Amino acid sequence: MDSLQINQRLIMTPGPVLVDPRVSQAMSNQILGQFDPDFTAIMNDTMALIRQSFATKNRWAFPVDGTSRAGLEAVVSSIVCPGDSVLVPSIGRFGDLFVELAQRAGGVVHTVSAPWGTVLAQADIIAAIDQYRPKVVCMVHGETSTGRLQPLDKIGAAVHQYGGFLVVDAVASYMGTPVLVDQWQIDAAVGGAQKCLAIPAGITPITFNDRFAAEINQRKRVEQGVRTSQDHLSAAPLITSNYLDLTQLQDYWSPRRLNHHTEATAAVYGLHEGLRLALDEGLDARYARHLQVHQALNTALSALGLTIYGAGDHEMPMVTCVQIPAGLDGEAFRSQLLAQFGVEISSSFGSLQGKIWRIGTMGYVAQKPFILKFIALFGAALLQAGVPVDLKAGLDAVLDAFAPKSAPQLRQVNA
Amino acid sequence: MDSLQINQRLIMTPGPVLVDPRVSQAMSNQILGQFDPDFTAIMNDTMALIRQSFATKNRWAFPVDGTSRAGLEAVVSSIVCPGDSVLVPSIGRFGDLFVELAQRAGGVVHTVSAPWGTVLAQADIIAAIDQYRPKVVCMVHGETSTGRLQPLDKIGAAVHQYGGFLVVDAVASYMGTPVLVDQWQIDAAVGGAQKCLAIPAGITPITFNDRFAAEINQRKRVEQGVRTSQDHLSAAPLITSNYLDLTQLQDYWSPRRLNHHTEATAAVYGLHEGLRLALDEGLDARYARHLQVHQALNTALSALGLTIYGAGDHEMPMVTCVQIPAGLDGEAFRSQLLAQFGVEISSSFGSLQGKIWRIGTMGYVAQKPFILKFIALFGAALLQAGVPVDLKAGLDAVLDAFAPKSAPQLRQVNA
Repeated sequence: MDSLQINQRLIMTPGPVLVDPRVSQAMSNQILGQFDPDFTAIMNDTMALIRQSFATKNRWAFPVDGTSRAGLEAVVSSIVCPGDSVLVPSIGRFGDLFVELAQRAGGVVHTVSAPWGTVLAQADIIAAIDQYRPKVVCMVHGETSTGRLQPLDKIGAAVHQYGGFLVVDAVASYMGTPVLVDQWQIDAAVGGAQKCLAIPAGITPITFNDRFAAEINQRKRVEQGVRTSQDHLSAAPLITSNYLDLTQLQDYWSPRRLNHHTEATAAVYGLHEGLRLALDEGLDARYARHLQVHQALNTALSALGLTIYGAGDHEMPMVTCVQIPAGLDGEAFRSQLLAQFGVEISSSFGSLQGKIWRIGTMGYVAQKPFILKFIALFGAALLQAGVPVDLKAGLDAVLDAFAPKSAPQLRQVNA
Repeated sequence: MDSLQINQRLIMTPGPVLVDPRVSQAMSNQILGQFDPDFTAIMNDTMALIRQSFATKNRWAFPVDGTSRAGLEAVVSSIVCPGDSVLVPSIGRFGDLFVELAQRAGGVVHTVSAPWGTVLAQADIIAAIDQYRPKVVCMVHGETSTGRLQPLDKIGAAVHQYGGFLVVDAVASYMGTPVLVDQWQIDAAVGGAQKCLAIPAGITPITFNDRFAAEINQRKRVEQGVRTSQDHLSAAPLITSNYLDLTQLQDYWSPRRLNHHTEATAAVYGLHEGLRLALDEGLDARYARHLQVHQALNTALSALGLTIYGAGDHEMPMVTCVQIPAGLDGEAFRSQLLAQFGVEISSSFGSLQGKIWRIGTMGYVAQKPFILKFIALFGAALLQAGVPVDLKAGLDAVLDAFAPKSAPQLRQVNA
């Protein structure tokens, strides 16, 4: 079998997205032993970076060695005991995933749903909390299946009134728009790798607070091979996973460094570098960049002659849902766009499948050169497929969106 | 925070070990979308490579996106239902892990144990199988905590007499000594990444046969967000994990390509390249290389004046256990060896802690230049610590072990 040959792609999906080459460089470093002081120092630095990324003072902030849903499952399966009441306000496919995870953990799940493509009013969620008084509320912040950003800054306080815990899936919004864990009173949050952070999938940053830690540690049982006589054996129902047991991961990501899995060294390098680059850019600047690019893309798509789906209704500033032009086979076009032009966009799920495409502007690709190239190639492919878009108008819109607003128009004269 | 600066190490532990730079190069390729035909072709190639690596015709051979114990947990939690009888023949710390995983899956666990540092006679394991008639037998092939290779070629047939399933942890032996899945009648096997395959931890190749697949699929439930009306909803106890649910991973790693997690692209690149290099070398040649290097190391350590622990008693041909010289603080020495000389070796677990060091010769480091350099640095550090080793004898032993046996002694004259 030959070695890999990776063709050039422009990935404009809501993840996974193109990786900053500096991250790939960092990941290609030789590995270190998992208990090498050089490596544990990197682990500690990574924890500090994760804290900053979530705007939290939480002691517990570390990655789970798995893709995003491993992080979600680690949080849900550690906090939800069999029989626990769980409320999932759901606005799309990733709300369904929370239902699935909570059910597998033995939770009794209640849902409050909004039609796909809309968000829930926080007042309606709070009413459901008052009704069910759930131990755990699981919410998706950025619902990529519909491109909606669910407001949730008031939910934490409501959940805490009844002693419950707020768990937030911030996989898609993380590093592209503020996720303010402490300010919003989120008890446990899960970020994403292959979305706005723009590192390869396979590692998932999470954070949780001391109250959450105290709750899950009631079920803690150090495993037999590394247990000492000081380790209390809980009588509470065991967390069903060992790999995703946050009480064990805590022991690994703390000075005790208790042997658990072998940390995914290269993935940690990538996470460290991705977070370092993000914080070096500045989180506010990064969020502003995502918003500017999102607006530029939407304007350009409209200028092409396409219709934005759910425009103005709590759009995620890194996912654009656009209606598939009437009469066009959306999947056949997507295949051609990828095969002929090397550009990837996404379809959707459930009731939106076949109706909208989803275009992501996350992380590294959320920059003018990529957006201009995207509109050029996407518009060209539409024209080639017989859709009469106004390509010049689309390109003008991108250039205009990024034009220096206050710069003198004639400075090229002096060039 | 500064970008990463990784100091040079010579990692001679039983994992994680140094990565072949060609693997790191492959991993630094730009990512592809998870449903890009270029990427699904790589997924299919990777499945073919995994089949060859396990010497199996199994249809099901794919990686789990997590470290080794994620693969172990995926297999155990998918096959063990609450109340199922599980037998764990245990000879060390990783037998204990199987007990832990089976208990968390709700299994009723029986063990048959040998003293640490020895292996079990297959007849004794078979007697326990006759006694308990377990649904699942979980065995560790290479028990790195004690450096023992457990014979298990006769166990599959015994388990199948009662309709049971044999699950094998081949994490440490995989790609360093034969793991013959079909010939040994193993129903599910788990390999390792950061051991003899020598790629970064974070992805775990597994395989299982059709009988195993039929059994676990009795518990299959496609998740709500992607379920269709054709999907049967099982009434059997749900697999508690979603992330590690092999019935869902099957749908992702088959033509259905049902959306589950986002595949860890860079890790798959690394796995593909690592397996490609191993199969290009030839598995028999690779196994012979590990054995030769292991013997060279043992001879050299003896020549230094140290004592091999459990010499000749079913040693793993990639882990050497060596007694810590009397009067030496083994942990203080290990720290100095790493800090001053950049060389990492391992301590052990449980009753062996403080008594032996474990030295690994896995994958990329299992080559003459690394072994010679290791003996030079390790011997020098021992001398510096006041242990009177015969460094010249140790080095001579390495050079002699790798000398071309039939080559004319005087060919340098013509150089």
